[in-house]
Amino acid sequence: MTPYEVIRRKRDGGELRSDELRAFLEGYAQGSIEEYQMAAYLMAVFFVGMTEVELATLVDVMLHSGVVADLSNVPGIKVDKHSTGGVGDKVSLVLAPLVAALGVPVPMMSGRGLGHTGGTVDKLETIPGFRLELGLDEYRAQMERIGCALIAASPEIAPLDRRLYALRDVTGTIESIPLIASSIMSKKLAEGIDALVLDVKVGGGAFMADDAKARELARTMIAIGRAHGRTVVARLTAMDRPLGFAIGNALEVEESVAALQGGGPPDLRAVTVALAAEMLVLGGRADTVEDGIAHASAALDDGRALEMMRAVINAQGGNASVLDDPAILPQADVQVVFESPRAGRVVAMDTRAIGVAAVELGAGRATLGARIDPSAGFHLTVKPGDTIERNQPLGTIHARTEALAQHARERLTAAITIGDGRATQLPLVGERITG
Amino acid sequence: MTPYEVIRRKRDGGELRSDELRAFLEGYAQGSIEEYQMAAYLMAVFFVGMTEVELATLVDVMLHSGVVADLSNVPGIKVDKHSTGGVGDKVSLVLAPLVAALGVPVPMMSGRGLGHTGGTVDKLETIPGFRLELGLDEYRAQMERIGCALIAASPEIAPLDRRLYALRDVTGTIESIPLIASSIMSKKLAEGIDALVLDVKVGGGAFMADDAKARELARTMIAIGRAHGRTVVARLTAMDRPLGFAIGNALEVEESVAALQGGGPPDLRAVTVALAAEMLVLGGRADTVEDGIAHASAALDDGRALEMMRAVINAQGGNASVLDDPAILPQADVQVVFESPRAGRVVAMDTRAIGVAAVELGAGRATLGARIDPSAGFHLTVKPGDTIERNQPLGTIHARTEALAQHARERLTAAITIGDGRATQLPLVGERITG
Repeated sequence: MTPYEVIRRKRDGGELRSDELRAFLEGYAQGSIEEYQMAAYLMAVFFVGMTEVELATLVDVMLHSGVVADLSNVPGIKVDKHSTGGVGDKVSLVLAPLVAALGVPVPMMSGRGLGHTGGTVDKLETIPGFRLELGLDEYRAQMERIGCALIAASPEIAPLDRRLYALRDVTGTIESIPLIASSIMSKKLAEGIDALVLDVKVGGGAFMADDAKARELARTMIAIGRAHGRTVVARLTAMDRPLGFAIGNALEVEESVAALQGGGPPDLRAVTVALAAEMLVLGGRADTVEDGIAHASAALDDGRALEMMRAVINAQGGNASVLDDPAILPQADVQVVFESPRAGRVVAMDTRAIGVAAVELGAGRATLGARIDPSAGFHLTVKPGDTIERNQPLGTIHARTEALAQHARERLTAAITIGDGRATQLPLVGERITG
Repeated sequence: MTPYEVIRRKRDGGELRSDELRAFLEGYAQGSIEEYQMAAYLMAVFFVGMTEVELATLVDVMLHSGVVADLSNVPGIKVDKHSTGGVGDKVSLVLAPLVAALGVPVPMMSGRGLGHTGGTVDKLETIPGFRLELGLDEYRAQMERIGCALIAASPEIAPLDRRLYALRDVTGTIESIPLIASSIMSKKLAEGIDALVLDVKVGGGAFMADDAKARELARTMIAIGRAHGRTVVARLTAMDRPLGFAIGNALEVEESVAALQGGGPPDLRAVTVALAAEMLVLGGRADTVEDGIAHASAALDDGRALEMMRAVINAQGGNASVLDDPAILPQADVQVVFESPRAGRVVAMDTRAIGVAAVELGAGRATLGARIDPSAGFHLTVKPGDTIERNQPLGTIHARTEALAQHARERLTAAITIGDGRATQLPLVGERITG
């Protein structure tokens, strides 16, 4: 089958057999199929979608385009979590050590901030000395030794996915559910996981503001997992407001430490415990989700999760005293409290706008490869539904300069609606999707 | 606007402003926009279509990517005809000299055979000495001198269209009505025309077997013409059976000569006269289509059309004695009469299959750049609806070898259905579309 016929078949809504699609993808990987033919194919997929067989093939070819981590020497069912991304979403920093502390190995490869959302790698890099660019041998050895690793995706993992992502990025084909799902799943399968919990963010601060699309993404990833013999369970969680109070890299590490100490914001703890329970059930360390919630809550309260995080930080060269004294994290020169212009109720938070404001402050990247300011961000003190006095503080801006702080204050004031109406909120932990 | 934003806007169904699309297209022409970005844009157009403003811009940029013939020194309203292509469609060879003989200048640039259909250039090249690759200066001089030229599209004409067509050909984006329409119109406008008659073939032997799409193509070309100040009139004509009896290059020239002599197959004459009448009205040489039909019929019968063809052949170096003695055309070594296997009625002709059989015989190209056999083809003797005896001849196959002729006989026997039912036929000259 010629590339031309592959593109036309897809374009006209037909299904490609596994060997046909495989030859096309491998031809691209090897250079016999041109970038412009792949671009046309990807745009056709954007409009027409992919069948389960096609998805399984795409994931398989991307997965085997690089190294697949072999964690067979790590005893137990390896379970990871993937989040579709949000504002203030520092769940991974608490969840990975928590679940690992309860006996389920957690091999977690993460990304950097993307768009208006933060990334686990950027956050962990604020811990002095913490190394995220581990080689695959070191990663595997650490998994065998302590059952938990928090690293950046290795360039040896799924290089074809990397190349396709770069092409999609310049050809307007990012926003395709099958392409997003297969990109995530190829990397997760290459990590060496046995099962995956998917945290699907919904609401204005999520990447997919459309709930129906978020559900479709979850179902697509579950189908890919099934085709590869892996169980994937998805939970919808609220991103119509930031998660926790802290937004910004070092500030989020500090808040994560509080959660690992058994404290921190209640919403952060609730989402973390709910996802941990799913992972514990998948990993065979809890019989029911309710059991899992109980185990996870206990391990946060009695310090087991904190001690696992200490082991991870020590293993990866970081200064684990951050867990006792977060003041060793980078601190912003300027800290400005911003106040409510009026009395009323917090009716709504434009979560995407808050994320964009954090990026503008330096907590994220406007352009690829830009340096971030690890100390920049916000510590909010309110949530939707809260009743507010005039001039009551709504939070603190942490910035490099007064000018940046002033700009952020304007953005935040516009993004947080104080009014007289009611605040409507999505359930913090919502629908569970299993297939 | 970045290329990425252009692609996304189109993908999401938005309209690009003229300056935005122009910058994208000119960037591609100059090399700053990549082939893969154009491929993604073209596939998005396949799914989403183009607005009138976008179409006008695309045509304008393609048109001005090369030389635009200036025929302002040629007096009169210059009118050309474009056919969407069919089997046995030799109308141009009769129509161009006929209309020019009646005082309407006809600047006609044609193509070669494509797919299962023949091309005017391949046909005229069977006339000994006839040169079709005229330079633009020679073309213009001939138009000034005799008011008619029948040439191959010059490489100086619309080079961006040529490049986009080549990219579409390998990215599965040929079958897009706005892209087809703008490709045709950019070349026609570059010829120097003032008005255009479009012969839209419908039925199984047409490129667009779907009538609704054929009508949409006509309306799209009319809209492009309007945006560029040119009148375009379309007629639907039947391609559910071959036009005339001859299929194959030299055989079709011979049949065209018969038509120019006032004879030839009635259907060829009827389509030619109907299209000529439209061109005469557009060119101001007939008040009504009925007048045009009368003028055109007279000019075929009294030899004026034939004499204009003589002038064109002489001007372009050809041996005009072909008009008196078609035996100087290439003749096939093998001529095989094929007969009906049974008595009955010609119920249907699979016109596309007949065209494919002619290509297989050597009358067309299976691959780009292949040599054609100018003498190969068929001379059929029946039309749908004809009553046939058993063993009655259905036509003659002209071939290079007995083996090729035998293969063609099988194809033709399968393509011509002799049965007991009724033959349904499309009207020979159908709907007129003007906007």
